[in-house]
Amino acid sequence: MGTDPKHIVILGGGFAGVYTARYLEKLLPPEQASITLVNRENYWVYQPMLPEVISGSIGLTNVVSPIRRFCPRTNLVMRDVEDIDLRNQVVTISPGFLPRQLELKYDRLVIALGNVTNFYGMPGLIENALPFRTLADAMVLRNHLIHVLEEADVEENPEQRRKLLTFVVGGGGFSGVEVMAELNDFVHAVKKNYLRLRHEPHRCVIVQAGDRILPEMSEHLAVFAQKILRKRGVEILLNDRLFSATSERAILKSGTEIPCKTLISTVPSALPPVLQKLDCAKERGRLVVNTALELKDWEGRVWALGDCASIKTVAGKAVPPTAQHAIREATAAAINIAASLRGGKRAEFAFEGLGTLGSLGHGAAVAQIFGIKLSGLVAWFLWRCIYLMKMPGWNRKIRISTDWLLHMLFPPELAQTKVALEYGIKNQHFEGGDIVFRQGDLGDNVYVIQEGECEVLREKDGSQELLATLGRGEYFGEMAVLSDRTRNATIRARSAMNVLIIPKHDFNKLRESVPAFGEAFSELAKGRAVGGPAHSSIGALSTQELP
Amino acid sequence: MGTDPKHIVILGGGFAGVYTARYLEKLLPPEQASITLVNRENYWVYQPMLPEVISGSIGLTNVVSPIRRFCPRTNLVMRDVEDIDLRNQVVTISPGFLPRQLELKYDRLVIALGNVTNFYGMPGLIENALPFRTLADAMVLRNHLIHVLEEADVEENPEQRRKLLTFVVGGGGFSGVEVMAELNDFVHAVKKNYLRLRHEPHRCVIVQAGDRILPEMSEHLAVFAQKILRKRGVEILLNDRLFSATSERAILKSGTEIPCKTLISTVPSALPPVLQKLDCAKERGRLVVNTALELKDWEGRVWALGDCASIKTVAGKAVPPTAQHAIREATAAAINIAASLRGGKRAEFAFEGLGTLGSLGHGAAVAQIFGIKLSGLVAWFLWRCIYLMKMPGWNRKIRISTDWLLHMLFPPELAQTKVALEYGIKNQHFEGGDIVFRQGDLGDNVYVIQEGECEVLREKDGSQELLATLGRGEYFGEMAVLSDRTRNATIRARSAMNVLIIPKHDFNKLRESVPAFGEAFSELAKGRAVGGPAHSSIGALSTQELP
Repeated sequence: MGTDPKHIVILGGGFAGVYTARYLEKLLPPEQASITLVNRENYWVYQPMLPEVISGSIGLTNVVSPIRRFCPRTNLVMRDVEDIDLRNQVVTISPGFLPRQLELKYDRLVIALGNVTNFYGMPGLIENALPFRTLADAMVLRNHLIHVLEEADVEENPEQRRKLLTFVVGGGGFSGVEVMAELNDFVHAVKKNYLRLRHEPHRCVIVQAGDRILPEMSEHLAVFAQKILRKRGVEILLNDRLFSATSERAILKSGTEIPCKTLISTVPSALPPVLQKLDCAKERGRLVVNTALELKDWEGRVWALGDCASIKTVAGKAVPPTAQHAIREATAAAINIAASLRGGKRAEFAFEGLGTLGSLGHGAAVAQIFGIKLSGLVAWFLWRCIYLMKMPGWNRKIRISTDWLLHMLFPPELAQTKVALEYGIKNQHFEGGDIVFRQGDLGDNVYVIQEGECEVLREKDGSQELLATLGRGEYFGEMAVLSDRTRNATIRARSAMNVLIIPKHDFNKLRESVPAFGEAFSELAKGRAVGGPAHSSIGALSTQELP
Repeated sequence: MGTDPKHIVILGGGFAGVYTARYLEKLLPPEQASITLVNRENYWVYQPMLPEVISGSIGLTNVVSPIRRFCPRTNLVMRDVEDIDLRNQVVTISPGFLPRQLELKYDRLVIALGNVTNFYGMPGLIENALPFRTLADAMVLRNHLIHVLEEADVEENPEQRRKLLTFVVGGGGFSGVEVMAELNDFVHAVKKNYLRLRHEPHRCVIVQAGDRILPEMSEHLAVFAQKILRKRGVEILLNDRLFSATSERAILKSGTEIPCKTLISTVPSALPPVLQKLDCAKERGRLVVNTALELKDWEGRVWALGDCASIKTVAGKAVPPTAQHAIREATAAAINIAASLRGGKRAEFAFEGLGTLGSLGHGAAVAQIFGIKLSGLVAWFLWRCIYLMKMPGWNRKIRISTDWLLHMLFPPELAQTKVALEYGIKNQHFEGGDIVFRQGDLGDNVYVIQEGECEVLREKDGSQELLATLGRGEYFGEMAVLSDRTRNATIRARSAMNVLIIPKHDFNKLRESVPAFGEAFSELAKGRAVGGPAHSSIGALSTQELP
């Protein structure tokens, strides 16, 4: 050989990325190739089992596999990809502890960055819908579910309690169905530990754009799945989709509104921003590759695979974004990369899929394998066997089997494993008529209107007096925060409204350190106090009542 | 009975609180008493095993026990205690989803709120030292350890790499020693999965104020423990203590500085704020109770137990803050509460302790039980048996045994289970001479000086030119953030300095929505650009270079 090893850089640590690294480790000796994989996490998620984290039937860290152990010769960089320069063959990586970016030069590049959730054009979804892709998403959802159950148990108001006990999933594909099935099982199982919720019904709703769920499967199996889910109390709304959301409800395209505190969206997806800005051919929001998985115009240098690539088999069939396909894509890409470095036969992607499997929760599933359709307990058993078999390594296999066994013997975990406090400046969306806060509430946040209008209302003896209307760029809520008293007016959105929410904690830190920031709000208060008739009445809820 | 049940409210869900609830459930039927327990979490941490979460030898949710299952008849309120009004017998609870507080009236009150970490007078500790009390603390520490290992594996600079691989624990009591033992074991075990760290040494340091570690035990055992720890590579610094810290190093009272990115503090503690403001007798920072555990001046109504109470046995001996004592305190308090409601014999607290146990990591421990002293493997085996036996419920016992077994068969978990992004406005502390950022770094934050001074330096051809000195209330770092370029000056603290850090993400949100906020920084930039000679040179790093 005599020459330096070539640098192969793999972006993304999903099925496609880690299996490419693993095959390359086998195909190319260290003196021929150094392999680097960039991924935000140091583990790789076994996606089909992720929904089981919700009910705790598989322990948190058992649905993931450390990349370092799966690809022992690969250099892992646990950071984000910020830029790809195809011309100069350089990838820019986000900073670590020090504010300096890292640049990785490559001889061969594999792009397997998957896709991201994209709520563009759907007001309030980004603020209120929980995604379900990563282990972090699954943990956040699980903790959120426990939080709403805990709050429902304390809540006196029946309408509020119903809202806390309503769970909506947008998207009726595999992911949406499996998430809902696990969620429903979990809530059923743990509700008996809540003294006041034991006999209270909860509501589960799947919203699906098509005229049936599970479009990935035959109609026969989808109808079976619908029947099972409905029998278990899940409502299925067909031919409808999520349109917008507030912190209090989901709003569908048909106009249907579902009051809820839990909204999960498993659709829609888009290319990650770093690929959106990449200067190369794309179709239907994916990177264009040939049947050797080479990126168009960069053949022999760059490969794209997994969910971010638009792949067709040799027979011309579009390849779906599933794990079984990603693994075969990885094999093909690894063979072709090795061939590009040392010559040899190239591989064309021709895998047509073995079948599909979907879990419906305890003791039920649907399966369609080698043309055979199965449903119910047999399919469920098959589901567990196949995915357990495919889980790499004895360590994980044994841990998951143990988890499953213990889950059958004991009730599910109920501990909330929350780490972070929910501080921080954030955005929120309100629809016309929504109450932002009520007179008498605690002053926990300051609001800045970014879009839309709201009304300031004083409630007295059961009637409401309109004190003022506020619009874009105006602030409200500062007085109760400044004075540490309760709100002395109600704020109601007049139209769809977007606000920036500054929590009291951050507001006070900023006010103390940046005087101009605090003054902006004091000025406003003064303006309200000395203004015209409408303004002076708002004054009543501001400076005049300061201690 | 004929009368309404009495309301018993228990504040705090540690050993003392949950065992009181459990005993009360047995002593008093529902028609005599309704029991409510307020705790921030819905689980109760089995404290002695918490350090094992670090190495993953026990799964995350297996060191905690859901309170709802342990005390099935108790109403759990998963919120914070905000105020206790002893006179009117009302406890105020923090709001849930709605910004309204909850008020709980009580006939009998149990205060078992434990203590909190208190870094008052220790600059930089609150910003940089990781506490170790709760499950969340353990998860944060574990994720942090994985993060520094990942970064060390990428780091080229050997000094920086050494800093990333240095781990300091403040406090050499049980908690500090067990945390360090587990941390050291974990780093040893997983380092082999990092290609570039395999042969790199790491540094572990315990800092202890006394002249030996483990003051809770006999000198003989403490010396044994020191020997074992030192043999395993842990440095033990005696007669010294943490004095201050920055994000780059720990500074001890003796003046010793230890460059590190990981600093854990297991001392010191204080009463939770809600108890600090409570109007009742206190001694050495704890609530004063009699031997029946009744709060002084509120006998027959209020009991205080656990780590927040200053308890003496009937024999006059001070009671240490351990789990075995808390459980006996709970029994006594429950008996006395029952007696206060329906008459009967009262209990006096007389428990003198059975012994002490401390784990030193894989296969070693120290124990002192019924006067017998044990060390090494025998003590370690005893440690595991005793704590497993005391773990309530078969579910947990089986899960933990399984975890221990699997931990012996397989390498420890390596997946980082991080949920939250580290956004948000925060404080930071620098010592004189510290570099805040360097010319050429990315502009990731804006800084506001709250205390102290810093120098603005321009580096050119290897030499440094002093451009300006900034003090309290002044800002820096805004230009690189506004212009999206790298820093064009270095900032060095002149003295100890406290700053407010506003991350780019928050800075831009605020600037867009609150014009006055953005203007405060633009004004400053203008001022710098048109100022005197020193100022105009800072101008060079501000507006002039804006695009």
